[in-house]
Amino acid sequence: MSDARIIGAGMVPFGKWVSKTSESIAQKAILDAIADAEIDRSAIGEAFCGTSYGGPLAGQRALRDLGMTGMAITNVENACSSGASGVREAVSAVESGRAEIALVFGVEKLTKFGGGTLPLEATDIDVSQGMVMPASYAMRAQRYLMKYGARPEHLAMVTVKARKMAADNPYAQFRSPVTVEQVLQARMIADPLTLLMCCPTGDGAAAVVIANSRRARQLSRRSIRIKASVAQSGKFETGAHDISQSELTMRTVALAYEQASVGPNDINVAEVHDAFTIAELMYYEAFGFCEEGAASSLVESGQTTIGGRIPVNPSGGLLCRGHPVGATGIAQIIECVWQLRGDAKARQVEGCKIALTHCTGGGVSGLDHGACLIHVLGR
Amino acid sequence: MSDARIIGAGMVPFGKWVSKTSESIAQKAILDAIADAEIDRSAIGEAFCGTSYGGPLAGQRALRDLGMTGMAITNVENACSSGASGVREAVSAVESGRAEIALVFGVEKLTKFGGGTLPLEATDIDVSQGMVMPASYAMRAQRYLMKYGARPEHLAMVTVKARKMAADNPYAQFRSPVTVEQVLQARMIADPLTLLMCCPTGDGAAAVVIANSRRARQLSRRSIRIKASVAQSGKFETGAHDISQSELTMRTVALAYEQASVGPNDINVAEVHDAFTIAELMYYEAFGFCEEGAASSLVESGQTTIGGRIPVNPSGGLLCRGHPVGATGIAQIIECVWQLRGDAKARQVEGCKIALTHCTGGGVSGLDHGACLIHVLGR
Repeated sequence: MSDARIIGAGMVPFGKWVSKTSESIAQKAILDAIADAEIDRSAIGEAFCGTSYGGPLAGQRALRDLGMTGMAITNVENACSSGASGVREAVSAVESGRAEIALVFGVEKLTKFGGGTLPLEATDIDVSQGMVMPASYAMRAQRYLMKYGARPEHLAMVTVKARKMAADNPYAQFRSPVTVEQVLQARMIADPLTLLMCCPTGDGAAAVVIANSRRARQLSRRSIRIKASVAQSGKFETGAHDISQSELTMRTVALAYEQASVGPNDINVAEVHDAFTIAELMYYEAFGFCEEGAASSLVESGQTTIGGRIPVNPSGGLLCRGHPVGATGIAQIIECVWQLRGDAKARQVEGCKIALTHCTGGGVSGLDHGACLIHVLGR
Repeated sequence: MSDARIIGAGMVPFGKWVSKTSESIAQKAILDAIADAEIDRSAIGEAFCGTSYGGPLAGQRALRDLGMTGMAITNVENACSSGASGVREAVSAVESGRAEIALVFGVEKLTKFGGGTLPLEATDIDVSQGMVMPASYAMRAQRYLMKYGARPEHLAMVTVKARKMAADNPYAQFRSPVTVEQVLQARMIADPLTLLMCCPTGDGAAAVVIANSRRARQLSRRSIRIKASVAQSGKFETGAHDISQSELTMRTVALAYEQASVGPNDINVAEVHDAFTIAELMYYEAFGFCEEGAASSLVESGQTTIGGRIPVNPSGGLLCRGHPVGATGIAQIIECVWQLRGDAKARQVEGCKIALTHCTGGGVSGLDHGACLIHVLGR
């Protein structure tokens, strides 16, 4: 159980902001988070910026024009988990007494690459041979469908659910509803994953203000507790694990449940790293939301949509809210902050007391992941 | 006063390692640090990688082939202060109880850029107009010489001193002695800075193992205490400060002295960010090693060389040991660890009890700095 609480949250709608600078995107999110915390920006004692492609001193460049200078600023990189890793460093800073109030923001401008799958290190032998992200997840999907008798329709249902919830999220990149048939008939990217089963590229930023519990209680009556903040990296083992299961996520969530003193049945809402539809199914099982092999039934039953037993990705997830790498982990946390406060409006999950966020960063060596970050939040 | 102690240190000789991968350079430093700590690599609970140009998941890529996987790995970026920023995060991790033993390594392979001054963000208006690092420091040098009546010979003396000490450092990139005349007659880069007054580009890695004091005392009889670990960023103010003084370093060192409960007269040896010779002179004054305007007399007096009152950069500093960005801050700390242990051989500073390391990262907006990191170490 950490001593850190979230006292403010702000983000920009994710999308393709070609004509905006990375700094201006970040600044909007930062100012919204500070306004939400109802503090003066001078109260921030330290800042962290999570970004993977932002270049040297991305945090300093964004904060400079806000006059938020002088304090310690640290940039954190962990691929798709960069923002969440920044949150974890801020938790540590607050717990070690280094700062009473810390700002964490994540930002990415992926449109600068012109589209397509993300640039990865070509020195990685798997990547140089074509094992880019969609290919890697397609292999996992093929294995999963074969092993558990699931069908491509189940993969499509994840997108249909995500679009349905994103329709109520003004911050989401894709908000128009789609049908299972439309998802299946979209252009094939890596069999069985069609275009609509892959998260988009886009730009965005998200920010939270974190304080130790003493300061948080002074400043806010609706702060949200960070009950667990856990990171693990992959084991990069070949052949040791079935690729239809995420050994890394299973290991990380076990630590997070322990740190937060909760179990899977305590979670009321989850924001999950659905970079590709197959991932969400695998993670249902990794979190213990259902038994091994039962994820396709779970999504089909409607239990993971709003009104169901365990709504997953009410924001629309990476598939529909979008996935500007460094911003994603913080956007997940913000969605859960809104859900826990009861501020999520049309997509509000009723009776929300405990939330889980999960992201995994980087497919180094194709099949495994560089960094898995899980946060458990509560009121 | 922090609760963290350094129990192991290792680095590779800095130089142009064109045919080696960044990962292999890092791995050598990591294994040397772990061997120096006399622990098994499985005892490491968490790892940090400081790098500015290493690309996504640089830490994971380096640790993977050592089998050091599964644990939390976080990449930290703060330009030239990236490695030192990683140390600060590790101190926080150890103090907050997140890990008992943490590894921090810094790595950079600058030869991949083909030489010349570092790639900076061209979106920065000053940089796009030619205000690259050598130009920025040349302006400071012109101002300093004019204001205090110092001469280019004083700038050259910094290099002469650095080369003399680097001759005894097998890890240094440049070890052959030079004269004041040779330094002054070298090719002009940005008046008054000649080639030999600018730090070189190169490749390198450095690593330390950090433990909380309880574990450190169990594991080692010669661990070194991190008495202060402080970061600040520049204020990015135009015209508010004379550019011949480093407002950022002055502010950061004041916090470091306070945290370590020491003053300038307590420091027995310092490793200082002499990216250009003028910087070392400015920092003498910022640290309080001499009065304002007296730095040229101090270097001329020989008091900042071995045998003098306050030896600065016995390693050879950035000018001669070299400056592979992410590795530098950790290399500075390692030099001080060796000095404090009495292991520095021919370049040993006698009676060394308190050491200071200092680096500044990034000249965003030309004249100010993105991140200043200062560590105070003691036995």
